[in-house]
Amino acid sequence: DELISRVRVLGHPLCVGLDPYLDRIPPPFRRGSMTIGDPRTADAVADFLGAVIDRVSGKVAVIKPQIALFEQLGWRGMKMLEGILDRARKQHLLVLLDAKRGDIGATAEGYAQAYLDPSSSMSVDAMTVNPYMGRDAIEPFVRRAAQDRRGVFVLVRNSNPGSSDYQCLETGKGLLFEVVAHSLHEIEERLVAPQTEWSSLGITVAATYPDDSDRIRAILPRTLFLVLGYGAQGGTAKEAVRGFVPGPNGMEGGLVNASRAVLFPADGMTDNVAQWEIAFDLAVEQTIGALRQVV
Amino acid sequence: DELISRVRVLGHPLCVGLDPYLDRIPPPFRRGSMTIGDPRTADAVADFLGAVIDRVSGKVAVIKPQIALFEQLGWRGMKMLEGILDRARKQHLLVLLDAKRGDIGATAEGYAQAYLDPSSSMSVDAMTVNPYMGRDAIEPFVRRAAQDRRGVFVLVRNSNPGSSDYQCLETGKGLLFEVVAHSLHEIEERLVAPQTEWSSLGITVAATYPDDSDRIRAILPRTLFLVLGYGAQGGTAKEAVRGFVPGPNGMEGGLVNASRAVLFPADGMTDNVAQWEIAFDLAVEQTIGALRQVV
Repeated sequence: DELISRVRVLGHPLCVGLDPYLDRIPPPFRRGSMTIGDPRTADAVADFLGAVIDRVSGKVAVIKPQIALFEQLGWRGMKMLEGILDRARKQHLLVLLDAKRGDIGATAEGYAQAYLDPSSSMSVDAMTVNPYMGRDAIEPFVRRAAQDRRGVFVLVRNSNPGSSDYQCLETGKGLLFEVVAHSLHEIEERLVAPQTEWSSLGITVAATYPDDSDRIRAILPRTLFLVLGYGAQGGTAKEAVRGFVPGPNGMEGGLVNASRAVLFPADGMTDNVAQWEIAFDLAVEQTIGALRQVV
Repeated sequence: DELISRVRVLGHPLCVGLDPYLDRIPPPFRRGSMTIGDPRTADAVADFLGAVIDRVSGKVAVIKPQIALFEQLGWRGMKMLEGILDRARKQHLLVLLDAKRGDIGATAEGYAQAYLDPSSSMSVDAMTVNPYMGRDAIEPFVRRAAQDRRGVFVLVRNSNPGSSDYQCLETGKGLLFEVVAHSLHEIEERLVAPQTEWSSLGITVAATYPDDSDRIRAILPRTLFLVLGYGAQGGTAKEAVRGFVPGPNGMEGGLVNASRAVLFPADGMTDNVAQWEIAFDLAVEQTIGALRQVV
């Protein structure tokens, strides 16, 4: 509900994905060799993402760091991520950590504690979870999120071409992603308090497979969508908001993520910081503008 | 092949899972509050696991750290994991990192670089991968592993009760885990060099579902099994090695993981280090003995 109320005020559902690919960090922020083995790399990424956070503050509700690209820098990357989370909190941005974790009971508790427990130094507002290991691998995250007023987004439908390999298998009870959606509905009914308008259990859907978003919305009416694959992966703004429903200020029901299209505009590869700022702000505004037209 | 040759010399397939649950760390190693927010916790875990590594060196081929329980300690946990990896290398133990990562192309490359690239400070001999996002989320790991002579173990069948929720859905082309196994066979044929006896692509199977191990072996004849759920989760030694095949020194074809049963024997909860050592060594020897009888 906190998320949706911010989205309503801003008038758009953009979530900015923080995917710091090392070879795409703009020149003003680069330091040293920019390889994973170089200790200066984490400082360079921190400077870049710090500037990004300051510039999107007040313009978007949520940022989504992709943890793989922090992890690849080892413990320095994780320490840097802690700093990024701090900075985001100070700028009043919600953080959805794209971790795609999934494991059995006691281990899932470990992950949930690391990222959803308010006492953890890595604590975020929501995280992504992988369902392959079954309902007892999902429930510890949902339970912890419901208890600590955090969110969990379970992978249901992904945007990459290969995601159809398994997710779209016909099982006799619907496609696999529909079966996952049905079992999440059952988990939601059981573990998430019904007082709120939108649930603390969210899921992923794909701008590249908009028809599937409709099918999932029919199964999960009060679940927030994290829409993947908008922009760089080919989904249009209109396709991205399929499955959104009418709200007080237009269509609502989730977040639309854009990573590379916002983070690395072509004109941003310049030595001049002021030019990078202009290119970046323009990319943010254009993406917001495109989404405002469809909600 | 390196792995199997070590297993042949040792005469058993035991892999010791390093799952440092904070409330189960034996008293001689505990420091401070043993909570995730206490900086001394990582030092305590490092002392405990260091002692474990020194004691299993020469007795087992492989250790399997569960990354969730390091991650929950934030960057200090990841730095501590680096130290553990170093110590394992010095003791000539192979390391299979239980990370269960899975993501799309470029992000999967990030994870693969973090854990399989020899230049990374977190570089291990093999890691576990989650297949839910499809073949293009698996291939970057397999390709990197084949190139750098490392291994990848893809989750196919898990041992927790909930793993059947989705993995055992009938798809018309077999159960979901069989479909995943078939597509891994195709990936293996295409990306893994055929020179070696055993493949650098491995998978997980469950001691708790031994019939499924037979079905998977029929699909993947030269794939190493990482057998989960032996011991604490209820699988017997005989059930654990289902799907193993005759080799020069007995039955072979994978690793059998034991975590809690080895790491936390009941008699090991003592203030006396010497008594802990005795209890721990006995747990290792008993587990090895039980496995030697069935291979």
